[in-house]
Amino acid sequence: MTKQRLEIEKSNQQKPKPESDQIPFGSVFTDHMFVMDYDSAKGWYDPRIVPYEPLTLDPAAMIFHYGQTVFEGLKAYRGEGDRILLFRPEQNFARLNRSSERLSIPPINEEEVMDHLRELISLEKDWVPETKGTSLYIRPFIIATEPNLAVAPSKTYKLMIILSPVGSYFTGGLRPVTINVEDQFTRAVKGGTGMAKTAGNYSAAYQAQAKASQEGGAEVLWLDGVEKRFIEEVGSMNIFFKINGEVITPELSGSILKGITRMSIIELLQDWGIPVTERKISIDELYQAYEEGIVEEVFGTGTAAVISPVGEFNWLGKKMVINNHQIGDLSQKLYDTITGIQRGEVTDSYEWTVEVI
Amino acid sequence: MTKQRLEIEKSNQQKPKPESDQIPFGSVFTDHMFVMDYDSAKGWYDPRIVPYEPLTLDPAAMIFHYGQTVFEGLKAYRGEGDRILLFRPEQNFARLNRSSERLSIPPINEEEVMDHLRELISLEKDWVPETKGTSLYIRPFIIATEPNLAVAPSKTYKLMIILSPVGSYFTGGLRPVTINVEDQFTRAVKGGTGMAKTAGNYSAAYQAQAKASQEGGAEVLWLDGVEKRFIEEVGSMNIFFKINGEVITPELSGSILKGITRMSIIELLQDWGIPVTERKISIDELYQAYEEGIVEEVFGTGTAAVISPVGEFNWLGKKMVINNHQIGDLSQKLYDTITGIQRGEVTDSYEWTVEVI
Repeated sequence: MTKQRLEIEKSNQQKPKPESDQIPFGSVFTDHMFVMDYDSAKGWYDPRIVPYEPLTLDPAAMIFHYGQTVFEGLKAYRGEGDRILLFRPEQNFARLNRSSERLSIPPINEEEVMDHLRELISLEKDWVPETKGTSLYIRPFIIATEPNLAVAPSKTYKLMIILSPVGSYFTGGLRPVTINVEDQFTRAVKGGTGMAKTAGNYSAAYQAQAKASQEGGAEVLWLDGVEKRFIEEVGSMNIFFKINGEVITPELSGSILKGITRMSIIELLQDWGIPVTERKISIDELYQAYEEGIVEEVFGTGTAAVISPVGEFNWLGKKMVINNHQIGDLSQKLYDTITGIQRGEVTDSYEWTVEVI
Repeated sequence: MTKQRLEIEKSNQQKPKPESDQIPFGSVFTDHMFVMDYDSAKGWYDPRIVPYEPLTLDPAAMIFHYGQTVFEGLKAYRGEGDRILLFRPEQNFARLNRSSERLSIPPINEEEVMDHLRELISLEKDWVPETKGTSLYIRPFIIATEPNLAVAPSKTYKLMIILSPVGSYFTGGLRPVTINVEDQFTRAVKGGTGMAKTAGNYSAAYQAQAKASQEGGAEVLWLDGVEKRFIEEVGSMNIFFKINGEVITPELSGSILKGITRMSIIELLQDWGIPVTERKISIDELYQAYEEGIVEEVFGTGTAAVISPVGEFNWLGKKMVINNHQIGDLSQKLYDTITGIQRGEVTDSYEWTVEVI
């Protein structure tokens, strides 16, 4: 297949950009977006950059009825000398295609879309904020667009990439949070869609999140859907435990998202000679280790926060205070290393960063 | 709250209506639709009937990213004397609100929306087809519209009702189908969203459906997500077994949709003095009963098909042929009774039908 020509239609107005220290998460968008269409006869076609504008869809478009959709989230960082860097973007596009397979959505050409994303970011480079901790959030997503109420895969799709400048996840540095262990609601189960980044997984979590908030928690700790015993994720992040010198993260069971930050942390720890294991870990095992006093650090990992230290768990009325509500040394080191690599301030011996400009 | 005035904007064109015997499912829509908006300050507001037209949404609208959406499906039937009848519509709106609760969507006023639906159907009455087996399919749905990538419930929503004339589900009468017992994929699990009518549940099934088709099955038989042993649903229908004179349907476990046809069948069977039980039934129990020769009839139930007889199960290479691929007497009687009540041809002693006109 020959590479398709990218059409660019420039916006004739430039929106005001927010101040670096006052950027709300996910509600300010740049002047342009990337769009590409699919139909079963033509495949993916008509890649284009157009002004950011509303989308027009038939009310019967399948996205509204049967949820056939996948998405990704990654960030562009402004480094020294105004270089703009992405962090392992090829992993995001590979995962987008894995998610699409689960949702019966046709795959994209990862390299081509990556090239189109570079063009889009180049055009929007002034939107990448400068202050440490800020970035340009990149949201590729695919939606089923065929207007048809039959319960079957759509024959047409739309891929879009929108960009949103985002502020620091933690204003005032890393802040350990309290986590509610959820015993009633289930995020995902083996054989379901938990390992795919698809819309339905996220709203399914809102009730548990509301319950956690009411009970004073910042996030939900999800247990497996089968035995309600094994730890899966925290909020929409992967989770790591440092217990007695060893780092443990739940193995990819089919219901856990394969996080790119997760993957990077495992590689870093291996490189640093710190024991790291992907295996099942139950909430009982965690509690027992807690009672033995050997739980040293716990943190969530994801694109938004990078590292989110856990200060406390609430589990059926029982409290586990982790590292006296302080950030652990390893959590801090991982955060500094990854954010440093992302911004080009720490030598990237892994070739994780991709320079856009 | 005072009832809100319904605004009606009539379409200045009338689309051609399909012939009764040539109606595709779910791809022809009527001339008008119902729309109502929600925001957290005003509640649900601005109920209106407008021409059927494309929807304009921000690309960051939450429906596209986090799947916060619910829907319903019901039908309007044309009875004798051109009466137009609905079947237990209040149950659909009650279920819509139950689904909304699970998805953290604000409830609607069921009676008011029911009144608006009557107005819509009255306006579109010529779209209700006449031939036996045909009907006007009604699709109410709610989508999250706030343009925001934060993972949290939307502050704004849109409720829409679109209408689509649909043909007979079975051309040429009830036809028993072959069903593939799914041992790998999971539709839903306790604590998840299986009991809600929400988009993500449906596309999550496409891969299993494709697998069933490849193996010669028409639909998927879903087992529970925990033990992969207990029978839950068939395709997107509830399921009933007549075994040794007793009718059994899986109990509502939290992952099974509470079907309105299911409910009606249980009430009919109780009224007819036929033993009917809602309980767990495992695939092993079914197979054992099959080997004993006491499985008399099996059928799926739902709004689309009403009754869909099962002629055969494929389970890990083992075949179970049900009632020699013939429609059972009870299946036929239930089908005739329910479709008769729906069309006003059988006395409705249950007050299930609601006359629109």
